[in-house]
This record gives sequence, C-alpha cells and structure tokens, in this order.
Amino acid sequence: MTAAKFIVIEGLEGAGKSTAIAICQQFLAQHGVDFINVREPGGTPIAEALRSIVKDNHDEEIASETELLIMYAARSQLLHNVIRPAMAKGQWVLGDRHDLSSQAYQGGGREIASNTLDSLASIVLKGLKPDLTIYLDIDPAIGLARAKGRGELDRIEQQALSFFERTRTRYLELAKCDDSIETVNAQQSIERVHQDIITVLDQFIKSNH
Amino acid sequence: MTAAKFIVIEGLEGAGKSTAIAICQQFLAQHGVDFINVREPGGTPIAEALRSIVKDNHDEEIASETELLIMYAARSQLLHNVIRPAMAKGQWVLGDRHDLSSQAYQGGGREIASNTLDSLASIVLKGLKPDLTIYLDIDPAIGLARAKGRGELDRIEQQALSFFERTRTRYLELAKCDDSIETVNAQQSIERVHQDIITVLDQFIKSNH
Repeated sequence: MTAAKFIVIEGLEGAGKSTAIAICQQFLAQHGVDFINVREPGGTPIAEALRSIVKDNHDEEIASETELLIMYAARSQLLHNVIRPAMAKGQWVLGDRHDLSSQAYQGGGREIASNTLDSLASIVLKGLKPDLTIYLDIDPAIGLARAKGRGELDRIEQQALSFFERTRTRYLELAKCDDSIETVNAQQSIERVHQDIITVLDQFIKSNH
Repeated sequence: MTAAKFIVIEGLEGAGKSTAIAICQQFLAQHGVDFINVREPGGTPIAEALRSIVKDNHDEEIASETELLIMYAARSQLLHNVIRPAMAKGQWVLGDRHDLSSQAYQGGGREIASNTLDSLASIVLKGLKPDLTIYLDIDPAIGLARAKGRGELDRIEQQALSFFERTRTRYLELAKCDDSIETVNAQQSIERVHQDIITVLDQFIKSNH
C-alpha cells in the first residue's frame, strides 16, 4: 500500500453525495483500505459548532466574508485535529466536501475574488490537496427539488437558484483544469452513477497500489 | 463635527480596559458625540457565538489558525453589520479591542506569521483603521493577578505567562511605529491612568473638531 490518500466527494445539494460516499466506503472496505470519514464544514466538536453557525437560519444576515472565514476556520480545525493526524498514521480519508466547495460556493456562488480564496487556502491547507475528488454534476433546479423532498432547507440551501447556477459553473470550470477532479453526471440513473463512481475508484486504486 | 471616528481601547487582561471604556464614554457624552459601543470578538449575535467558541474551555484543542480565522470571522461580521453602518450614519464607534488584538495575541502570542495576519486584515478590514487606539500597557504578571481576582479565567486567560509576554512585546512594537496608537502606563494609580486617558482624548478631540 502506498501512502494514505485523501478522497473527496463534491457536488450541489441533491446531487447524491451521501449515496456516493456509501459506494466509496464499500469500495474501500472491499479493498482492505483503513480509512476514516469526515464532513465539511464540521468533523470535530468545534468545527461542528462552526457548521451550525453557517447552516442554521438566523435573524442576522451573515456577510459573505464571514461565511468564508467560518468555512476556513472549520477546515483548519478538521485538518489540524483529524485529517493530518489520520494521514500521518497511514489512514485514508474520505471527505464529504473540502476546499473545492469553498471555491465553488463562496468563489462562484458568492462571487468572492479568487485571490481572497487563494490567500485563505494557502494559510489553511499548506499545500495539502485531495488525491481524488469525485464531483457529482447536476442541474441545480433538479438537485434542489431533490433536496426539498428531504425536508426543511438550511440557510445555504435557501439561496436563490442563480447562486447555485454560479456555483455549478465554477465547479465545472475547476474540474476542467484539474486532473485530480473526476466529473460524474449525477442526472443519470442511480445504476449508471454507481457504475461511473466505481470506474473512477477502480482507476484510482489501480494507479495507487 | 467632522466625520465619524473609530476609537479603540486595547490591552492585556487586567490592564483596566473596562474602566478606560467608562472614561471614554463619559468624555464622548460630555462632548456631545453620538457614539456606539462594541466589543471584539463579538458585538452581533453571530459574532458573540464565535466569541463563545474561542473563549470557552473545550476538551478539544483549538489550532492557532482556527482561533485566528474565528477572530477575523467575528470582526468581519461586526464591521459589516454594526461598525460600517454606524459610521456611515455619522456615529462614532468606541471599541473594546479590534485588529491590534489579533496582531498582538495571534501574531505575538501565538507567533503566527505577519503575512498571514496581513492577508486576513486586508480581506476583512479593507483599509478601515481606528482613528485612535489607546493601549493600556501592563506587566502581564500584574494584569493576570488582577484578572484572576475577578473570577474564573477563560480559555485565553489561561495561557502561559510567556504567551502574554510575547503579546505585550508585540503591542509595544506596534504602538511604537503607529502614531494613531497612544500608550498609557496602566500600572500607575487609577487617578494617573484616568488623567492620561483624558489627556489623550482631549488632544484627539481638539485635532478632530
């Protein structure tokens, strides 16, 4: 086995991240990989407290830059207390969202300047980058309709459709210029999505064993 | 009256910030200034929730960079929702701590690199700077003894003495090279400290009327 790997699942609300994570978990277990699951924002008690602040509905408007800084504070905490220690012990990490979400949601959706995001990424990530990101691509109108079917929407899920359209556009732009991001069409049947994810994982694990 | 001004009181635990703020409040009221009070981290419901995260005692260690990002997230929220709107209406702002605290505590105390702090300050402050900062200088051993007399210490107050010594050193260095920061010796008698603060305020208000 080579060094610990960091695999991340990304995508809009309703894209099927939970199903994709379950598929990855089963795949990694079948291949005898020792791994942990994390989610962002969150994954430690303090990071989960930060998650509540950005996800809960408040009477007070959260400024875009406040939201961005809270996301990176949570990421910093998760990296420091969970991801880096696990990888140092040789454990793989399977993440439900990571830095690409900030680039897509805060950079694309909120239209925060790239150099602002680059500064924060440099402070917090210190060069750490997922070895593989599976981006589940879906039309936000379809994804949000699915998310609504699951129950009450959180603060971010309640943003306007145009916000999610900008977010999706940024995801697609970033995926196009980064070989470690594999785009899966999440509008296909569950069976086809499942198969596409397995194909990506098969290819990844073959090139890393 | 000229444009709204931003006055900040800074100093270590036990330096007498609360007393200094009361003196400023009385002074501004006597001079017919319309002003608001804010404190950092905090000052809005969301910023106060962030304050609790950094000040409360947790089982989990808070990474230095997480602490720094939370401080700037709280500052971003306070600036966006309180300080900028007040100043736009012509109200003066009297602050209990501001950016200088991050520079001293996180930059000096936690030894975080200056360029990291500069990046965050640039993202959050966008050039806004207090018109006057009164820094209450005290030997940390004396200040902490005073703070302990007030009751249980919060997470930051429980740091080692060397942390506060580095913080004080940074405060003094920054005060030395910034004309808008006035240092007051907080180890003098209450009467002398009071008089020194009034002298600083008198001088400030004369040059701004």
